[in-house]
Amino acid sequence: MRCEVIAVGTELLLGQIVDTNSAWMGEQLALAGIDSHYQTKVGDNLERIVSCIRLALERSDAVIMCGGLGPTQDDITREAIAEVMGVGLIRRPEIGERIRAMFAARGREMPDNNLRQADVPEGATVMAEMPGTAPGLICPIGDKVVYAVPGVPYEMHEMLTGTVLPDLQRRAGVAAVIKSRVLRTWGQSESGLAEMLGERIVELDGAGNPTLAFQASGIEGIKVRITAKAADADKAEAMLAEEEVRVRSVLGDLVFGVDDDTMESVVLDMLRQRGLSLGVAESLTGGLMGARFTSVPGASDVFRGGVVCYASDVKFSLLGVPPGPVVSAQAAQAMAEGARRVLGADVALATTGVAGPTEQEGQPVGTVFLGLAMSDASEAQQVQLPGDRQRVRQYAVISAVNLLRRRLLGA
Amino acid sequence: MRCEVIAVGTELLLGQIVDTNSAWMGEQLALAGIDSHYQTKVGDNLERIVSCIRLALERSDAVIMCGGLGPTQDDITREAIAEVMGVGLIRRPEIGERIRAMFAARGREMPDNNLRQADVPEGATVMAEMPGTAPGLICPIGDKVVYAVPGVPYEMHEMLTGTVLPDLQRRAGVAAVIKSRVLRTWGQSESGLAEMLGERIVELDGAGNPTLAFQASGIEGIKVRITAKAADADKAEAMLAEEEVRVRSVLGDLVFGVDDDTMESVVLDMLRQRGLSLGVAESLTGGLMGARFTSVPGASDVFRGGVVCYASDVKFSLLGVPPGPVVSAQAAQAMAEGARRVLGADVALATTGVAGPTEQEGQPVGTVFLGLAMSDASEAQQVQLPGDRQRVRQYAVISAVNLLRRRLLGA
Repeated sequence: MRCEVIAVGTELLLGQIVDTNSAWMGEQLALAGIDSHYQTKVGDNLERIVSCIRLALERSDAVIMCGGLGPTQDDITREAIAEVMGVGLIRRPEIGERIRAMFAARGREMPDNNLRQADVPEGATVMAEMPGTAPGLICPIGDKVVYAVPGVPYEMHEMLTGTVLPDLQRRAGVAAVIKSRVLRTWGQSESGLAEMLGERIVELDGAGNPTLAFQASGIEGIKVRITAKAADADKAEAMLAEEEVRVRSVLGDLVFGVDDDTMESVVLDMLRQRGLSLGVAESLTGGLMGARFTSVPGASDVFRGGVVCYASDVKFSLLGVPPGPVVSAQAAQAMAEGARRVLGADVALATTGVAGPTEQEGQPVGTVFLGLAMSDASEAQQVQLPGDRQRVRQYAVISAVNLLRRRLLGA
Repeated sequence: MRCEVIAVGTELLLGQIVDTNSAWMGEQLALAGIDSHYQTKVGDNLERIVSCIRLALERSDAVIMCGGLGPTQDDITREAIAEVMGVGLIRRPEIGERIRAMFAARGREMPDNNLRQADVPEGATVMAEMPGTAPGLICPIGDKVVYAVPGVPYEMHEMLTGTVLPDLQRRAGVAAVIKSRVLRTWGQSESGLAEMLGERIVELDGAGNPTLAFQASGIEGIKVRITAKAADADKAEAMLAEEEVRVRSVLGDLVFGVDDDTMESVVLDMLRQRGLSLGVAESLTGGLMGARFTSVPGASDVFRGGVVCYASDVKFSLLGVPPGPVVSAQAAQAMAEGARRVLGADVALATTGVAGPTEQEGQPVGTVFLGLAMSDASEAQQVQLPGDRQRVRQYAVISAVNLLRRRLLGA
């Protein structure tokens, strides 16, 4: 079963919007075991959209069209599909009423234009999910199929997960349920993980189910994705759980979380469970560490605040760092102790170092010291971080948060 | 002149990488006056890459291939182009030497694999720019042309700007030079700007040169792009300068900068010129404001630091904010005054408010107070910001920085 993706919209070609939808759909198709060999972007032009659909149907069994389902005259995906199907558009009053009700729920009157969204190619069916005003369409063409979903990401996600992927799997004769789970790791390279898991990967390659795959996500570490195929969802979940135990037994505390966990959400949860509050002292990271922790809703019951001590004398005056080199282990540790004291926090993290573009205190770009102060002990750790100014700063933050995570685990 | 873009790489189809290159190229082609009707992504498969090139050459006059020029066996863009040209690959020793020298400069020996990058389709020419180990290729096919550039963004940017766009314009018979300048604005909607500039836009629509275009960039405001076409670069620059004066006379201090300026780089420059230092106090923004200022290289001669006072009692104890509601104008102003004092800064900015997901102190999500303290006066301003938690936080930061910018301008 092969499925192509066609993203529709002149704004995509002009580079006014980056097409992240196609990347997401490509990932989902791969996870569902559907091959996808081409992705195309085309503007809001009827003839060209039609030619793209025809070509995709020659090369593949199914096509997902994304975008061009809005209410304006530019939105012509419906017309293009109808032309390829050789049918007309039929206005479906019940969809019109549904759209009108959505507007009414927000206290607004529906502009007449929006009735265009109730136009459906003859012979097409409407998807059950309809989170916005654009209905998703399933349009059979011979034994092939064209799906149309809106370009609004959350609407598209809901329809792809709820209708398109299951329908594609049914057409592909995939009786099985495919599920996946991501183990988030930090602190080891992709090749390092592959080596650690080498024996298990060889075993799995033979059986082919479940599978393990690695996905690099920059400063956020490497994702290890377990994918399992089974007769039903419970069996697939059981396989995932079993494989997770196996992988964790090899990787240990390199695994910091699962699926949507982030390093900061995990550490905030650990602190919350232990009844500990947190403060930070930041030099080269300039506020990034505080910003990361406070990006998590509900951070306020753990995170008390921070001191951004960019100028050296702010380190001395506000945090009580002893005079001397500020790119040093001593300074990092004193910053953490000072932050713990002035913020009234149980635990404090600190960063100091050289973000670049030039060296500082004779230390090269990327030299970073992390400080950690807890009730019973404080410490500092030196790390050498790669990349430019922004990467050094971001690596410094996640390295510090990971240091705290490992200490909370007792490592 | 029509030019298509083909991005090559299985990782793009699998969604492991989002194809931002094509969006950037689309924008550059549009600015250069070259039409681009289709963009395609294809995996590392010879037959499929060849079919994509052939199709693109049927529909368009030129094709830019991006990616697949690396040293591994997966990198087969060179082979695919040679097949379409009906020629073989010729190893060019001088390119091999150049690559070897690049490795030597980093103290490393070149792996033999990299010699594949010295293979060039017979009849193709190599671009002058070669910032990495992959040479860019110009491959004539009849009266059409296929360009190949690497997928590494900075390498691609350099080749597109230096070779591909000028070559396309030459082929298109565009004798003129096209130049553009972006005026960065903040604080007015796209439709508001269009109304303010309405008269001038009508005038320009008649003449067609220079042109004005708007481009929304989220919380960063609206870009107003002036594009001018002239016989030579000097004349085009003169037209841009003249139009910039005209637009600025209408928009006044809504314009905060030009081209690569950011709100924070502009404000740091203004402070530096006036010999003033800066501190911040952040509640709902949690460090984002400090992180933004310190993302600018050289910020340290102006930015002294900040206090992230997420917990209310940190506001009271560390900044001397009087007890009472912390989502208030009084608190914002006291935070700024306290930050100015404890950080020893000439100027301080503060943010406090409700980022969400739930209301706080009876105030709805999006309620934000900005504080500003300078040597002669301090003040607070209330703003109501749209969006979810992350957007409210980001809008709060840029709103505060813009408040300082306007005060420094004397507004």
